[in-house]
Order: sequence, then C-alpha cells, then structure tokens
Amino acid sequence: MSSTSCLPVPNSELISSAGNQLAKRLRRLSQRKYRRAEGACVVEGIQPVRQAHEAGWRIDTLVVAPELLRAQSAQAFVADVEASGTSVARLTAELFGRLSDRDGPTGLAAIIDTSVRSEVPPAAASETWVAVERLGNPGNLGTILRTADATGAAGMILVGPTADPWDPASIKASMGAVFSVPLLQVDDLAELRTWIAARDGQLVTTAARAEHSLWEVEFADRVVLLLGSEQEGLDDQTLGRGDLAVNIPMTGTAESLNLAQAATVLLYEVWRQRTV
Amino acid sequence: MSSTSCLPVPNSELISSAGNQLAKRLRRLSQRKYRRAEGACVVEGIQPVRQAHEAGWRIDTLVVAPELLRAQSAQAFVADVEASGTSVARLTAELFGRLSDRDGPTGLAAIIDTSVRSEVPPAAASETWVAVERLGNPGNLGTILRTADATGAAGMILVGPTADPWDPASIKASMGAVFSVPLLQVDDLAELRTWIAARDGQLVTTAARAEHSLWEVEFADRVVLLLGSEQEGLDDQTLGRGDLAVNIPMTGTAESLNLAQAATVLLYEVWRQRTV
Repeated sequence: MSSTSCLPVPNSELISSAGNQLAKRLRRLSQRKYRRAEGACVVEGIQPVRQAHEAGWRIDTLVVAPELLRAQSAQAFVADVEASGTSVARLTAELFGRLSDRDGPTGLAAIIDTSVRSEVPPAAASETWVAVERLGNPGNLGTILRTADATGAAGMILVGPTADPWDPASIKASMGAVFSVPLLQVDDLAELRTWIAARDGQLVTTAARAEHSLWEVEFADRVVLLLGSEQEGLDDQTLGRGDLAVNIPMTGTAESLNLAQAATVLLYEVWRQRTV
Repeated sequence: MSSTSCLPVPNSELISSAGNQLAKRLRRLSQRKYRRAEGACVVEGIQPVRQAHEAGWRIDTLVVAPELLRAQSAQAFVADVEASGTSVARLTAELFGRLSDRDGPTGLAAIIDTSVRSEVPPAAASETWVAVERLGNPGNLGTILRTADATGAAGMILVGPTADPWDPASIKASMGAVFSVPLLQVDDLAELRTWIAARDGQLVTTAARAEHSLWEVEFADRVVLLLGSEQEGLDDQTLGRGDLAVNIPMTGTAESLNLAQAATVLLYEVWRQRTV
C-alpha cells in the first residue's frame, strides 16, 4: 500500500513500530508529569496544529501519517514547516491511529514546546479576564478558553491547583484557543488580588447566593470574573473579598449551571454591556 | 464483609455475578437499540434517580449497592420506593462498580420506564423553546437540557436524526434535567414550522452570517431558537426560512462557539430581555 498523497513516501520508511522512541514519547506525553518534565504537549488535528504554529509556538516535531493526510493545504503546511528546519516524523496510518485519541484521525499531530510561557499582555483600557479557582476538569478548561477567545477576553487565570491546560481534553475542547488566549497561573486568592490591584482592575466574584444578578450591575472597564470550582463554587470568604459579587439567574430543578456555561454567560454579558 | 448501612443485607443475598439477568440487562441498556426496544434507560447517581422519581417517571427497578450507599437520606428514599411496590435489586459493591460508568459510584441506579413520553405543555403567554437540528453529541444534548432547565425554558425540540436523550452521557450532562424539561422530536424543518405556526410562535434561526446580533433584535413572546448541528450549522435555506435570523457575536481565532455555549448565550439573552 503506497501513499496517494503528493508527498509520496515508501511505506518502508514510515515508522510502524509502537516500540519506536517517538511513539513512546507521544504516549508518555499523555501524562501530565511527563508534559511538565519535558515542557511539551501533543496536539492533534490539522486546524489545532496550524493554530499553534500561527500563534508562534515552536513545533518540536511534526507527526504525519501521509496515508491519512489527504488535504493539499495540509500537505503544503507540512512541506513549509519541514523546509523551515523542523523535524518531521512520518508514521503508518495504523500506528498513527493507535496513538490517536480520535475516531477518525486526520493524520497530523505535533509535539509543541510549551516551556516558553506566553507573556501577560499590558493592561488595556477595557479588558476582561476570566478566572477559575481549583478548576478540576480539563474539558471545562478548554471550553472556557474557547469562549474567552470568542468573546475577545484578555485571558484566563487559573487560581490554585488546577487541571492542566495542555491535557489533550483541554486542547481539544479549546479548539486551539489554548494557543492564542493568554493564560496565567496564580497560587491563591491573595496573589490574584495583588495582581488585579497592580492592574487597577475590578474583582468580580460569582455565586448563586450573591445579592445582585449580572444583569443589574455595571462592570468596571477592567474586570476579572472569578468562578469557583465545579464541585464547591466560591466559599463565603472568597465571595466577600471581591469588589463586586454577582449571581447568574437560575430557575428550574437543576442545582447550578455547568461551570463552562456559567463562564459563557458572564463573558457574554460583560461584552454585551460594553457593546450595546 | 457486611454492609454498614441501616438496611443490613447479608452479602450472600446480594447479586454478585455479571452473568445475572439484571446485570446483563443493565449492560444491554447502554446501547441505544436496546433502550429503544425496551422503552427504558439506566440512570445512575442519587440525585438524578431522585429527580426522575420526583418528576413522575416510573422506576422499573431500583438498583442498589448497600455497601456503597451510605447517606441516610438515600437509604430512606430506597425504603420509600420499595414500600410503594417497586422492585429493588441489591448488588455487591464490586459488581455495581463494574457496571457503573463513574469513578466513584455512589451505589444507586435505576432502570426508568421511558415508554410514556412527557406531554407537550400548552402554549404559555411567554415561552422559549430551544431546538437543534441533527444534534450529534449526547453530552451537548444533556448540557443544553441543563441550561434550558436553569433558564426556565418551555422545552427542547430535536429536529431530524439526533443523539439519544437517554444516552448515559446525555443524562449525566443534564444533571437530571432530561426528566424535567419537556422534550419533543420532529422529523424535519417543515414539521417544526407547522408546530410553531399552530402555537403562534416565532422561529428564530441562528448562524454566524446572520445580519443582526441577538443583542440588536426583539424576540417575540413565544420563541423557538433553532441551532444547527455541531458540524454543519444551519444551511442557507433553513436560515432564511425562520421569522428572524440572528448571530451570536464572535471574535478571536476560534471558528465558532461550542453548540452548548451558543444555546446558553441565546437562552440567557432571551431571558434577560424579558426580565430586565
């Protein structure tokens, strides 16, 4: 079986063994401890890989299954990246499929160097950050990044122990926004407050029991919207230590919104108030 | 090992074999074709099971692992349901854990009779329905149901081939809202339009390329918000066949919002306009 792509590669030159060093490394990087130790993560899919590249992240290794990668534009992208000196590994479709976490793998993945953190943008006249305390679910992390991107938020802040933004579930849910949305990590609320004060921003805390709804308040020009974790929400002490506390109206039988839905409602309402 | 619950059951009387008829049935019901054939689904977790019961759904069989079910209120619930004549099956923690799709199973599940469909509520002076065409992902379905519940929507309408609301991923994401939010299925757009016309409602179609944003329009008192599938969105023809077409503002690098996020933004904006 030979490749039908316009980058024909004899099957004999494709990596086919799961015991190969690169295959082992790709599998290792599915674990957070190795991602942290190596300062690297794996991105899968044509669009997310291109987005990481375009956002300026360094590709350590491009991983290609020529038999699967049919789109001409994707092939041209591989050729460009390879021409710029980046290492390209070519795998059989069979091995690529085994390493992939997708149902229909498209034949492109990359190991991205995550050791260089994105810089915090300087304060803008008007800016919105979304912050989550003790965020547990990487899928929620990615979804919030995607919405932050869609609403033009300045970035996201992770407070305390948190899911890994470089987790495959986060990268996938973010649709690549993990590479374009500035991401900050702080140890605790005290550090967050210091950071906000230096930026002359407003800390907005959120909980169902807050007195005013997000529809009734006026947000400052620079806001940080702080949400609690999926399990616990914000405790009373944290809720009271913001500059403004708001609730998201809710009715019905469910106890709360999903964390990512709550972040979406907040980000859109702040944007709406600034726009309309 | 004996149970420490206040409903002590000798281990010898607990179902422990994966070959047991009930265990087989629980596994079978993870497949859509069997759920459809039997008119039943499996719900796991204390809160969702109670919610199904309180919303009036008939419990075919309550499935309990006494060793895991420690909460007194949950034990009282089991006793109440059993006293009313419902069949209760008791499993070993080991077997329950094997049948569970949770990391930390709480020891309560139920087979729910889904053959009796919920009735469509009569038209209210003001009501919001959310409709999705060719919805593919049961997790999205459940998340939208959860938000529909939280925003007091009248119900959800599934248009055309769709994910199964009784899929475990849908039930779980809905946090039980699948049992309280009225759910309607129609074959196609024509049927949807007929239904809306009879109800004197407004069909609102949504797409990024619609001219006006949801912030700029006035929604009618009775609206049906129609979203396209995760993959394809609404086609031009469908977009043009509504009474009103709106976009959800978007910026940044991501191509679109997640379907459930889009539904959340729409449901909250309609609610906000009616409230503020």
